[in-house]
Amino acid sequence: MATNELDRLTQLLSRLPGLGPRSARRAVLYLMKKRESLMLPLAKAMTAAASSITNCRVCGNLDTENPCHICQSPKRDISKICVVEEVGDLWALERSGAFKGHYHVLGGTLSALDGRGPAQLHVNGLLDRAGEPHVQEVILALSATVDGQTTGHYLNECLAGYEVDVSKLAHGVPVGGSLDYLDDGTLSAALKARRSAN
Amino acid sequence: MATNELDRLTQLLSRLPGLGPRSARRAVLYLMKKRESLMLPLAKAMTAAASSITNCRVCGNLDTENPCHICQSPKRDISKICVVEEVGDLWALERSGAFKGHYHVLGGTLSALDGRGPAQLHVNGLLDRAGEPHVQEVILALSATVDGQTTGHYLNECLAGYEVDVSKLAHGVPVGGSLDYLDDGTLSAALKARRSAN
Ligand SMILES: [Zn+2]
Ligand SMILES: [Zn+2]
Repeated sequence: MATNELDRLTQLLSRLPGLGPRSARRAVLYLMKKRESLMLPLAKAMTAAASSITNCRVCGNLDTENPCHICQSPKRDISKICVVEEVGDLWALERSGAFKGHYHVLGGTLSALDGRGPAQLHVNGLLDRAGEPHVQEVILALSATVDGQTTGHYLNECLAGYEVDVSKLAHGVPVGGSLDYLDDGTLSAALKARRSAN
Repeated sequence: MATNELDRLTQLLSRLPGLGPRSARRAVLYLMKKRESLMLPLAKAMTAAASSITNCRVCGNLDTENPCHICQSPKRDISKICVVEEVGDLWALERSGAFKGHYHVLGGTLSALDGRGPAQLHVNGLLDRAGEPHVQEVILALSATVDGQTTGHYLNECLAGYEVDVSKLAHGVPVGGSLDYLDDGTLSAALKARRSAN
């Protein structure tokens, strides 16, 4: 029988993706056994992240610096912008080590079902960046879902008047699959075999 | 690509039972989107729980009060002590509503494999309590695993010299099953059909 404090902690934890009420209870009991070594460090890390991490005003990445370390790095290829749906996709591509350009996080896909239109995505920022003279290629690294593909077509049309090549990931991304779940090899292959979006 | 702060948060979260590195990353991204509504409240709830919740010195339950609210309650039957392995099992029995006596949390089972002997469990506290004149029955609510049954036999021998009935849960607990995963109905049935441990 949980006290109010433990109930509240269990409820909050159960809101995390992948944790239901039962696994949240197990997590709480585990945390109570590891107060000094896990629970308090975790609370501190959350508080620190909440105050120090922001979305990069250029690309949307999460970082302590703004613009983020990728946008600031002199080692990255500024001629390429890789468009992803979420920060998790950016992380997946970074883990693969296959891409050394810049990113742009859309913040989702267009979705008729969820009522998400272009105004809910960071499209204008992308178009501003695509208009900069050093940008030569925009790579659409979107999920191979209906919404992902719809978003790709939409962005391709938006970018038609710009002096940039628009490419998309090669198939290799499993149909219906989300980028974040792909292994590094598949991601690398799909990126290398990218083709013109026209 | 995570910053050190996000890396650290991901690593700490991935140590929770049920969360691997991948689900920890998803949880971190979710938390970053819900800073005010989830991340900071969660950090606060953890800090509060770490400082305000202790193990009851009588039964081992987790509570803000010590002795816990169950040990202090005038409504509970002081003639019965239900012995469980972990606080999670106590919670499961409380959720079932089938038991209105007191508890004793052992802190695990005997385990040859994990090198856990009687000294690692809260056995002495149980024997002290079993010797109190108002205690009439000790119910062994242990897992139907080899270690759980071994622990039950051991406790039954320890309690042989005491003026208490020793009972154990009826079968109904699936063999190899852990109490915490049982539905309330099965738990209630197993408790009602309990039989003498001799
Ligand atoms: Zn950036
Ligand atoms: Zn207690």
